[in-house]
Amino acid sequence: MALQLAVSSVILALRPSPDDDGDDGGGVLGLWIPLVRRIREPYEGRWALPGGPLGEGCGLEQAARNALTTSTGLDPAYLEQLYAFGGLDRSRDRENEGPDPDRVVSIVYWALVRAEEDQAAVRAHNVEWFPVDALPDLAFDHIQVIDYALARLRAKILYSPIAHAFLPTEFTLAELRAVHEAVLGRELDPANFRRQTLASGGVEPTGRRLEGTNHRPPSLYRYRAESVATSPTPPPRSAS
Amino acid sequence: MALQLAVSSVILALRPSPDDDGDDGGGVLGLWIPLVRRIREPYEGRWALPGGPLGEGCGLEQAARNALTTSTGLDPAYLEQLYAFGGLDRSRDRENEGPDPDRVVSIVYWALVRAEEDQAAVRAHNVEWFPVDALPDLAFDHIQVIDYALARLRAKILYSPIAHAFLPTEFTLAELRAVHEAVLGRELDPANFRRQTLASGGVEPTGRRLEGTNHRPPSLYRYRAESVATSPTPPPRSAS
Repeated sequence: MALQLAVSSVILALRPSPDDDGDDGGGVLGLWIPLVRRIREPYEGRWALPGGPLGEGCGLEQAARNALTTSTGLDPAYLEQLYAFGGLDRSRDRENEGPDPDRVVSIVYWALVRAEEDQAAVRAHNVEWFPVDALPDLAFDHIQVIDYALARLRAKILYSPIAHAFLPTEFTLAELRAVHEAVLGRELDPANFRRQTLASGGVEPTGRRLEGTNHRPPSLYRYRAESVATSPTPPPRSAS
Repeated sequence: MALQLAVSSVILALRPSPDDDGDDGGGVLGLWIPLVRRIREPYEGRWALPGGPLGEGCGLEQAARNALTTSTGLDPAYLEQLYAFGGLDRSRDRENEGPDPDRVVSIVYWALVRAEEDQAAVRAHNVEWFPVDALPDLAFDHIQVIDYALARLRAKILYSPIAHAFLPTEFTLAELRAVHEAVLGRELDPANFRRQTLASGGVEPTGRRLEGTNHRPPSLYRYRAESVATSPTPPPRSAS
């Protein structure tokens, strides 16, 4: 049983939910993820995270970016190493017993992409986007990998400026709240959210307002440079 | 150039600083790390993080625990995956040009051990403990790996109950502050620290006091179960 090293990516984007008619102009946002249909065993025909074996002349982060570009054409606002998965049984196909597969250790990155990047996404062959709450059957342990990425995102949005990755440079508090609601999967009280967000000191008003909307256009905010710059801890240069 | 997969561990313990005479009974604490002297090329004779190639029948976390036990005899209070390091040039010995070495991707764990565990540490052959601010010349890119672990620890102690790993179940606020000071490498104002710690709600009084110390024994505190349980996000079971 040989040992293989692969790099995979969990790519998350915010899009209007599938059950939303979009008539109100905004629409409820949800998290979506691109998956690739496998064209060989094990798990032929099943959906899997974009990725592949680590190439010889390729650093880890570059391998993650390559998989991301090939499958979606996107250049993410946020790309970070998530976790290395290397349990002994994780590459075995439990429904289709064949010869023992190679053992695969996967170094998984996660990427967050903005809506405008997402709209430029290449519709690559064998790639399809799914809402994270309506995923198809997945190959390997990829459902657990996605669940872990979602848990990390939901934890991280509470103490770090990670929502930044889903937003344009300037945004309204309603837009920021919509990102939080989509990630957390529940509605938030607008007044509480506004109060807590302003008290945290992570964002600041730009002094401008959203143009062309209505008679009382909402104020625009931005993340403070220092709050975005200090998170996450950047890995050393030799790492990737 | 073959690709190898290794698992290494950054093990951190708190001990009295080397320049402290310990006469006052407590002593200033500092962070210490065990290193292993390499007995083969590349970097023969240099100090390196405990670890080795990933064995066939061994999960990632088990491999990290094995390296930790072999080199220190410790069972850590906190063990977590830190990062996977896989840059193209990281295993090259820049001072001793030989044939191109194998490319090594290292999955690094970090462990925090309590003082009482540390005192039970086995003095294994070729293993020595160093203060993190007086490290010897290290093999490979291990100095960068250690710097990254220290940066993560210093960031994490500000928003998570990670100091818990260095403390007994019940502790005084002075002991908690000493852990923060050792990790951050600077003195903290006792009154400010007390106020901020109690305001954060992470710890709670046990109702007991430290016995046998002086006429006004300090109160004992513990971490609230929910604050310790929610950090860090546990990886899925298939991961390790």
